[in-house]
Amino acid sequence: MAFETLLIVGAGLIGSSIARAAKATGAAGTVLMSDTSPSVVETVERLGIADGAAEGSAHHFAARADLVILCVPPGRIADVAADLLPVMKSGAVLSDVGSIKGAVVEGVTPHLRDDVSFIPGHPIAGTEFSGPEAGFAELFQNRWCVLTPMSEDAARLDELQAFWEQLGSEVSVMDPARHDLVLATTSHVPHLIAYTLVGTAIDMEEVTQNEVVKFSASGFRDFTRIAASDPVMWRDVFLTNKDATLEVVDRFIEDLSALKRAIRWSDGDTLLDQFAKTRDIRRKIMDAGQGD
Amino acid sequence: MAFETLLIVGAGLIGSSIARAAKATGAAGTVLMSDTSPSVVETVERLGIADGAAEGSAHHFAARADLVILCVPPGRIADVAADLLPVMKSGAVLSDVGSIKGAVVEGVTPHLRDDVSFIPGHPIAGTEFSGPEAGFAELFQNRWCVLTPMSEDAARLDELQAFWEQLGSEVSVMDPARHDLVLATTSHVPHLIAYTLVGTAIDMEEVTQNEVVKFSASGFRDFTRIAASDPVMWRDVFLTNKDATLEVVDRFIEDLSALKRAIRWSDGDTLLDQFAKTRDIRRKIMDAGQGD
Repeated sequence: MAFETLLIVGAGLIGSSIARAAKATGAAGTVLMSDTSPSVVETVERLGIADGAAEGSAHHFAARADLVILCVPPGRIADVAADLLPVMKSGAVLSDVGSIKGAVVEGVTPHLRDDVSFIPGHPIAGTEFSGPEAGFAELFQNRWCVLTPMSEDAARLDELQAFWEQLGSEVSVMDPARHDLVLATTSHVPHLIAYTLVGTAIDMEEVTQNEVVKFSASGFRDFTRIAASDPVMWRDVFLTNKDATLEVVDRFIEDLSALKRAIRWSDGDTLLDQFAKTRDIRRKIMDAGQGD
Repeated sequence: MAFETLLIVGAGLIGSSIARAAKATGAAGTVLMSDTSPSVVETVERLGIADGAAEGSAHHFAARADLVILCVPPGRIADVAADLLPVMKSGAVLSDVGSIKGAVVEGVTPHLRDDVSFIPGHPIAGTEFSGPEAGFAELFQNRWCVLTPMSEDAARLDELQAFWEQLGSEVSVMDPARHDLVLATTSHVPHLIAYTLVGTAIDMEEVTQNEVVKFSASGFRDFTRIAASDPVMWRDVFLTNKDATLEVVDRFIEDLSALKRAIRWSDGDTLLDQFAKTRDIRRKIMDAGQGD
């Protein structure tokens, strides 16, 4: 067991999945949860996925925990950390699951204590569903979890790594800025594009929503799944990973403009070259066990 | 049984799935196939999915068929139609499965005979895999098939509709231009965007391919599946549905630019409004049984 007492703050898809996985695998002895929403706390109690659940900031839980994982939207992580750090146990670990890391580190750092190890994290896992009932224990199996340690304490990093490995993940350690650029490419910009395209389709005056729904099986539906992800979380991601997102979006628009030009000028060779080179990466993703 | 003898020209994913489905459901009595590739013809024979298979243009098969379905890349449909129409039986039906319809109608029309009914079609179904071994009989179940009839013969349209319904599809009749605009929105532009984004990620100097593969589970992998579709087919789609594709792409780029601006100026309300409105269409797609 990596940690005796675990506090999960925020009982959404990720938080409730960590709770379930920690219980199922024995990665934590006692699992405590808190959430600002009374109805979410009620749901957690009804589902029985935690040993204790409390509404609000739950200082009494934070004071007991060996590991506190913040599973709130990225824009709230710094405030919640500032609230809980003063009451945390000496020697405890503070982590999070935010999809961006640079802004989290920047926001939390001023509130840090020398005797609490801050190790931001990001499990690369999720579904388009939200809330405590959407979670499941297997969510992290065979998925990567990135840790961006902000403390020199190698023993605490080893423990948190062991925790995620017990949940079924592989762990990759990198610095926050690199995480934000890599994830801008593999996650943030794909989400922005999916949200945009689904919006474009909804707004087409000449095409009815009924037609979009009927004929969605040939490409569009995959975008709607991505674009059904939690709106608040994604707003926070884009506002806090602004530079990397805009850099990748600009490159994407350049590349799309080049293909537009090829279409307009009937340059089939350019199209074929582009379409042929993207197949290989799909095969590599399947080989790496990261397909669906 | 809607048609006694069926000829499928082109034994790729769609052609071989039609063959399997027609045999499995009894929608055709005899299923013949032809393909320009000797190795594909061999594979068809080995798989036993047709009652006869021939290499090349197979005039002897075309002369026997009550229904000929062209399952070749969109750019080849007109040439194959021109080759086969002169030998087809009087009273037979000529159809296709091309992802675009306007250019198919334009290319085939000069070669038409009064005694052959031309009813272009497009089954909205597919996977990212290609070739005769990728096909399966259930591919069309619970999927829509669009027919854009170019003949006044209502009886023949009813027969082709019954054929597709026997394969498990629902049939929607519309005119070619409307098909091309609707599909540009739900299929062609989503594919162009997926091909572009996967290319952008591959070309990022700062992010390795290994990182893209490892962290693909949070959005990117869905794009790689779409971008693994048949390159030749998609080149032809964009070259032959140029106007509708460019119209939808331009709207998409406008919408993406607006979201870029919202990110740059930290306008969270605009982002949240956009992200919240796209959830509803996902629910409608699930309700319509068009989710995965």
